[in-house]
Amino acid sequence: MTYTLTSHQYGKAENHIVRIYRDSPRHEIRDLTVTTAMRGAFEDAYLTGDQSKVLPTDTQKNTAFVYAKQHGGGTVEDYGVALAKHFVDDVEPIHGARVDVVVDDWERVVVDGEEHDHTWVRRGPENRTVTVTVDGKGEEQTVHVGGGIRNLVILKSTGSEFHDFLTDGFTTLEETKDRILATAIDATWGFAATPPDWDVAYAAVRAAVVGTFATLHSLALQQTLWHIGGAVLDAVPEIESISLVAPNKHHFLYDFSRYDTDQENAGEVFHADDRPYGLIEATVTR
Amino acid sequence: MTYTLTSHQYGKAENHIVRIYRDSPRHEIRDLTVTTAMRGAFEDAYLTGDQSKVLPTDTQKNTAFVYAKQHGGGTVEDYGVALAKHFVDDVEPIHGARVDVVVDDWERVVVDGEEHDHTWVRRGPENRTVTVTVDGKGEEQTVHVGGGIRNLVILKSTGSEFHDFLTDGFTTLEETKDRILATAIDATWGFAATPPDWDVAYAAVRAAVVGTFATLHSLALQQTLWHIGGAVLDAVPEIESISLVAPNKHHFLYDFSRYDTDQENAGEVFHADDRPYGLIEATVTR
Amino acid sequence: MTYTLTSHQYGKAENHIVRIYRDSPRHEIRDLTVTTAMRGAFEDAYLTGDQSKVLPTDTQKNTAFVYAKQHGGGTVEDYGVALAKHFVDDVEPIHGARVDVVVDDWERVVVDGEEHDHTWVRRGPENRTVTVTVDGKGEEQTVHVGGGIRNLVILKSTGSEFHDFLTDGFTTLEETKDRILATAIDATWGFAATPPDWDVAYAAVRAAVVGTFATLHSLALQQTLWHIGGAVLDAVPEIESISLVAPNKHHFLYDFSRYDTDQENAGEVFHADDRPYGLIEATVTR
Amino acid sequence: MTYTLTSHQYGKAENHIVRIYRDSPRHEIRDLTVTTAMRGAFEDAYLTGDQSKVLPTDTQKNTAFVYAKQHGGGTVEDYGVALAKHFVDDVEPIHGARVDVVVDDWERVVVDGEEHDHTWVRRGPENRTVTVTVDGKGEEQTVHVGGGIRNLVILKSTGSEFHDFLTDGFTTLEETKDRILATAIDATWGFAATPPDWDVAYAAVRAAVVGTFATLHSLALQQTLWHIGGAVLDAVPEIESISLVAPNKHHFLYDFSRYDTDQENAGEVFHADDRPYGLIEATVTR
Repeated sequence: MTYTLTSHQYGKAENHIVRIYRDSPRHEIRDLTVTTAMRGAFEDAYLTGDQSKVLPTDTQKNTAFVYAKQHGGGTVEDYGVALAKHFVDDVEPIHGARVDVVVDDWERVVVDGEEHDHTWVRRGPENRTVTVTVDGKGEEQTVHVGGGIRNLVILKSTGSEFHDFLTDGFTTLEETKDRILATAIDATWGFAATPPDWDVAYAAVRAAVVGTFATLHSLALQQTLWHIGGAVLDAVPEIESISLVAPNKHHFLYDFSRYDTDQENAGEVFHADDRPYGLIEATVTR
Repeated sequence: MTYTLTSHQYGKAENHIVRIYRDSPRHEIRDLTVTTAMRGAFEDAYLTGDQSKVLPTDTQKNTAFVYAKQHGGGTVEDYGVALAKHFVDDVEPIHGARVDVVVDDWERVVVDGEEHDHTWVRRGPENRTVTVTVDGKGEEQTVHVGGGIRNLVILKSTGSEFHDFLTDGFTTLEETKDRILATAIDATWGFAATPPDWDVAYAAVRAAVVGTFATLHSLALQQTLWHIGGAVLDAVPEIESISLVAPNKHHFLYDFSRYDTDQENAGEVFHADDRPYGLIEATVTR
Repeated sequence: MTYTLTSHQYGKAENHIVRIYRDSPRHEIRDLTVTTAMRGAFEDAYLTGDQSKVLPTDTQKNTAFVYAKQHGGGTVEDYGVALAKHFVDDVEPIHGARVDVVVDDWERVVVDGEEHDHTWVRRGPENRTVTVTVDGKGEEQTVHVGGGIRNLVILKSTGSEFHDFLTDGFTTLEETKDRILATAIDATWGFAATPPDWDVAYAAVRAAVVGTFATLHSLALQQTLWHIGGAVLDAVPEIESISLVAPNKHHFLYDFSRYDTDQENAGEVFHADDRPYGLIEATVTR
Repeated sequence: MTYTLTSHQYGKAENHIVRIYRDSPRHEIRDLTVTTAMRGAFEDAYLTGDQSKVLPTDTQKNTAFVYAKQHGGGTVEDYGVALAKHFVDDVEPIHGARVDVVVDDWERVVVDGEEHDHTWVRRGPENRTVTVTVDGKGEEQTVHVGGGIRNLVILKSTGSEFHDFLTDGFTTLEETKDRILATAIDATWGFAATPPDWDVAYAAVRAAVVGTFATLHSLALQQTLWHIGGAVLDAVPEIESISLVAPNKHHFLYDFSRYDTDQENAGEVFHADDRPYGLIEATVTR
């Protein structure tokens, strides 16, 4: 064949690593789902099946687990950078590595009014995410760290309008001055510089997202996303850009006028529909 | 055909009802997924296709939504009882009705240190459940209310052993005096009497489940379930029985001895496996 | 505590076992997800944490895999019976065992018009299921084999009516003489005697389900289920009873009259809705 | 704020449209999940909340359903092009539109040896996908059609090796000359020209994918993907590029040597693991 392998990468997806910190009786837990992806001089593996330059995904898995001990003492971002740099720095054919981490949150339980030393319950559905990309060797190496939040399901029961939109022959939607606005925010952001504290930066982003969604009187989910993006850039000066993907999770007011009832439905009872849903996307850059 | 219709029921599953309480600027939200199931004199619908005694599932849906307003002012249990009794009391061919409710939890957001009036984020993965069963008409009618918790994912990083088990020729499991114990508890319970406050009773059950899991030094998940059951019966005297189903979500210590590393893994790095999983079940009755 | 452990069982869920038969160049594949559950004298494991009578679920897993070789030469039912009997017959504290098997179907691929010797594609979404229950030891032992089909998604575009149903003040559903009828059948059945060939019996059940759904002019999903049950009992005389659970997967005719269009929608364009859905259940017994 | 809205789009996701063709007693069915996404002059909707240039996603939904009748007589690709062009050509602020279609496959049932006129069962898990992108107005307009296959789960029980790979201090994987190779192929491809028949082209792609996977003696999944890409380009000259994403769904030989058994496991019994999995990606271009 005379075709071209125009892009390629390979790695190990969804290593589910639970790290317990037990240096004191009060344990800590970190629950990471880690995906590694390698780019480099692997053309022969594709073209001829020659594996001599391929670090098996099984080895990547082993490394991800060992590094959870060896480089697990700092932040998740530190761990991701150490792991990605290892692949690029220590394995000759690897020219670039990407490490994606999804963090599952555990909440320490309270028993008889006191936080328990070594028991937690899972708290979701939202996840924090971290992405590290290392490209190149030696002096030319670049390291990029990105953050994210996934599936932040949020709803406001008022303070949302939608009207004066464009109409055509297929329009049936009625205008509204008061509706439920609900979404499940997926956001990712990139840093132009390292913030003083990764966890503080994450908390500031989340607070900006939630606070803006709550307090902005919304004329459309588009407008809400734009203001969320701006608030995040305001809150964390090291972030250079944020991308937002947000379904409009429709809550339809249930029409009581069709029934033999004296009940009125003044913005009180809604059918939360599954599909289809609006899908709004925006990237806001400093 | 001369066969027998030995059991039958029908209903509407998974009506996703969101109820907003907006009597004051501080709104409240209740998010219910409601399933209704009817039993009664519907044999003709099966045998001949005669629908004259069948209240369509579409009508059940409409009723579930209207009742969320009309009888939505009290507890979820009140709503379930009103809805189930309506079907049995007001629709002649219906002899029994079951209403299952799955409650999605929303947490009020905090903005600048203050709880927001009308914005929440979803909190999971656990759900509270309520089941109401109404059987019979008039004097002979019985009403049973059950509670439940679904997918309470909980983990302890120490305080769990497993050893001195039965062995045979297929045994390879090693004994352990210290392991992670993790599960996702599904529990359902029945009430012999109405508790003073349904929400207080639920909170007491959850606290008993979580507290026992945390504080009992576990020799097996079986033992933990038994003690959880007892603690729940202790905590809420109106509960007569509780059934527990709990997967043993295995966390395998990652074996570092196979690598060229000086890192040790003293109960610190685990692979959280998906399948297979242990599955332990118990019913504890007063 | 003075409460009672009124029921209990434990086992290993979802062992995903792929068995390859390679005695000839034309391989065969069997893909089984096997769950084992044990009942017996395990009270001490619950009450005191004494594991001396508990065969660990890890051992059950090992056994399920080895038996896939040792007893995997016959039908899935043979395998299930051998595995369940092993636990009860060979492990003293076990008084009863249940083995549930979900079979994933693989279809041999055709290359250049010829069936390939050792390559398949997954075919779903439906699964065949097998359940074996062994209770008691020695002379008193009973062995029950059940079959099932899960998630058989089936749709007919005409030949389905729904009208002359019971109405009340909440009724808004319109009657129809022609609609789409769609469901996802879950069926389980028990055998009073061993059929000559398990696979032939399964094929006969599936043909009866599909054929009845297709050819019966339906006045309601209830009626369809009753006739399916009868047809299955007609087709396989060893089956004594069949239970059917079937969602009514609603397909709503999209209303074109609201638009500026000359298009008509004469039973041609439907919105396939997700939730809520009707849920119809029936058990038909010989 | 002085930030920049660097990219944005919006639309309606997952319109589940079932189209029945009933011009003759032998009906046909087409089951489409349609997502629309618009690009254009919508900045004001983000920056000021002004909706005057926004065609609501509800209207997009209505249009997608009506077009399933009005432009549903040809191929799925024809439908997608008509729908995408409508948005760009007929709605002034829309400069570009993307229509993604996921096709669910239904297989006509056979009753008593004859294909039934109006009943089908769902066949999966794989889906065909179609993507249409229309950019620009009038003379400058470009129309791109892409095809795809999603979740083609395929397995070969022999004819796959993996050895002579790069090793380091974290390597524990053993070399193998005979293993199960299994994956779930996601492929997307773009056309440089319109093929004579879209359905024939799709069938040719699928045959090339399946045939190459089956017949190539594999030295790595990377090599298999490269040869699949080449075979697709060979099979359909109008395709200019194909991207493949393929998890390595690991099947681990179950180690019988640890048990008290005389059974050997000569490539016969495997544990099909869920996570982690290898993930291999490649794009092959003409």
